[in-house]
Amino acid sequence: MINGKMTELGKKRSVIREIFEYAKVRKAEIGDSKVFDFSIGNPSVPAPAAVTEAMKRLISETDPVQLHGYTSAQGDAGVRKVIADNVKSRFDFDADPNLIYMTCGAAASLTVTINAIVNSGDEIVVLAPYFPEYRVFAEKAGAVVVESPCREGDFQIDFEALKKAVTSKTKAVIVNSPNNPTGAVFSEDTIKELALLLEKRQQEYGTDIYIIADEPYRELVYGADVPYIPKYYKNTVVCYSYSKSFSLPGERIGYILVSPECNNCGELYAAVCGAGRALGFVCAPSLLQYTVRDCVNVKPDLETYKTNRDVFYGALTSYGYTVVPPDGAFYLFVKSPEPDANAFCERAKKYELLLVPGDDFGCKGYVRICYCVSREQIENSLPAFKALIEEYK
Amino acid sequence: MINGKMTELGKKRSVIREIFEYAKVRKAEIGDSKVFDFSIGNPSVPAPAAVTEAMKRLISETDPVQLHGYTSAQGDAGVRKVIADNVKSRFDFDADPNLIYMTCGAAASLTVTINAIVNSGDEIVVLAPYFPEYRVFAEKAGAVVVESPCREGDFQIDFEALKKAVTSKTKAVIVNSPNNPTGAVFSEDTIKELALLLEKRQQEYGTDIYIIADEPYRELVYGADVPYIPKYYKNTVVCYSYSKSFSLPGERIGYILVSPECNNCGELYAAVCGAGRALGFVCAPSLLQYTVRDCVNVKPDLETYKTNRDVFYGALTSYGYTVVPPDGAFYLFVKSPEPDANAFCERAKKYELLLVPGDDFGCKGYVRICYCVSREQIENSLPAFKALIEEYK
Repeated sequence: MINGKMTELGKKRSVIREIFEYAKVRKAEIGDSKVFDFSIGNPSVPAPAAVTEAMKRLISETDPVQLHGYTSAQGDAGVRKVIADNVKSRFDFDADPNLIYMTCGAAASLTVTINAIVNSGDEIVVLAPYFPEYRVFAEKAGAVVVESPCREGDFQIDFEALKKAVTSKTKAVIVNSPNNPTGAVFSEDTIKELALLLEKRQQEYGTDIYIIADEPYRELVYGADVPYIPKYYKNTVVCYSYSKSFSLPGERIGYILVSPECNNCGELYAAVCGAGRALGFVCAPSLLQYTVRDCVNVKPDLETYKTNRDVFYGALTSYGYTVVPPDGAFYLFVKSPEPDANAFCERAKKYELLLVPGDDFGCKGYVRICYCVSREQIENSLPAFKALIEEYK
Repeated sequence: MINGKMTELGKKRSVIREIFEYAKVRKAEIGDSKVFDFSIGNPSVPAPAAVTEAMKRLISETDPVQLHGYTSAQGDAGVRKVIADNVKSRFDFDADPNLIYMTCGAAASLTVTINAIVNSGDEIVVLAPYFPEYRVFAEKAGAVVVESPCREGDFQIDFEALKKAVTSKTKAVIVNSPNNPTGAVFSEDTIKELALLLEKRQQEYGTDIYIIADEPYRELVYGADVPYIPKYYKNTVVCYSYSKSFSLPGERIGYILVSPECNNCGELYAAVCGAGRALGFVCAPSLLQYTVRDCVNVKPDLETYKTNRDVFYGALTSYGYTVVPPDGAFYLFVKSPEPDANAFCERAKKYELLLVPGDDFGCKGYVRICYCVSREQIENSLPAFKALIEEYK
């Protein structure tokens, strides 16, 4: 009688959450330090001090009626101007504050964008492996999800696969770089080739095909350049979140940026505003909006993650693991030494190593390992990883 | 090509927003103090000092990784327990923390609940006058909205009308008491009669009919009792928000409470969790969750609103206006002295009085006046209200 699809979604815990719950039980049994939980992508680095100070200052010095009052539905105009100026100066791209919509974080950015562009039966292409909730968001909006596997090895886009996946029904391709779960960053060549393919198809079909650039990990890169997609492809909508860069995942603050070069960008932005309204997402949390305004130039502390990555990647590859070169985000994507990644994860459990099989991300034969944990946990886990792979030799 | 319905929703500003924008222009022309803007329901009373202090203390004293980290999808377990205990002690009702879902405010509470229960074509009954976004939320979820007008005069439920509105397709009735826009509070007799009617119809049709109790104004009452609906009717879902009671409308914090007495309450709660996930609403803003936990017993400063109400209601009725007895919220619902409330509002504009016609709330012949403004604005506007009604004598 109620909505069965929603009940099913609510009951079915994600694999990640299953492992996280197992970790809690296991830690209670044998002690925290003996369980090596690499399942959850919750930043372990605290929010930058400047962010905390900005929040304190705002609460102490701003009239609470103004600070905690409704902003306009699409977000405070001053906040949006600061973000647009920042995009201009960082990427030399002419962003328009009147085409920015403040959101309650990355998930909201995606659901609002997808609901704005999709009509029932439209197809959305995801590049596997991909964040599993893309499917949930897209299907709820009435879209059909089409998977296009990436190239094994470096996990750049496999254009032969993508050519088959993109059809006259394709409304959007979701691009997530730096990538969860692989840590790969799509190169400039990859983005250029993607733009070329989609432009051709748009012409051929007489349709608009959007790139939805899902960029919560943009700031978490360790040397690589992350091309700013609106500079390469006109019909781009950027979905941004401050969760990872400011280590504020619980606070829910991000934005949608509609490229001024999109076809009928005004209509598209109106649809974003309409979808925000219909889903219940008007006015992102105001204290966080102003915090973003005051901290737009604050950079995350990358050193901790970078050292974690270097230590972990170096050790695992030296033991004989095959690991996707991790240019960004805080994940290692490791080839399972046996074809069935679920079996490998079960074997890892014997060593108290908790890893996530890639199957849920649409990529069998791999496991995801989060390195946004303490250095100590990584270092203490290394003998177990070594012993684990020895079993396969 | 994009979603036309969403574009339309994004382009069509609400009447309230139109008037608000007009006010800005007019104030620039003739000066702030000369324009009497009664259009927007933005609290003018600052957040209670205890709330501000709690936020400061949390930011200063809590580990930021914990404070700003993800809570569980449905909200922090400790926060939900505090809310359940508070409901128990205030209403002597046995709330269950495991049937509470923390949300980004009132709109999110409603969209998540509606999407959890509705299948395409189900009917949702709204009691007119009603908050116009109910229609937007319900239609986006695939429901059909059925209006049932309230009784003129006291704006309690008109049961003859409601008997016609409730059918075998009815999935829910949205009850908003204290009411926006009328300020009426549904009496215990009204709620008892409502419960009786819906129980009969459930039996007759063999269906579940939910009451969605939309309660953002619960704390804003000036003497009246507001019956706690789950005590009177089993299939009740409460949608709560702290926006008005804590004067934090911009911060987006509220909750959904599924009554443990609902049929299959576990399935229903799972559907709420699933809808939250599919709409992108997991983990309400964490700092605000903990603020609610630490301030659950803080009461709003009602004195300011109460005096505003008494001064305003007294004056308008003495001039000859007919006003719905305002028991709660911060609105006066005033009968237009001419049948067309839009024409009346246009005439009021000549006196720089900005009022909202009731038409958009599904109730012609009335205007809504927000009294969550400064006392000064109310007092300075009174001669204009007096002169305005003189025109009709």
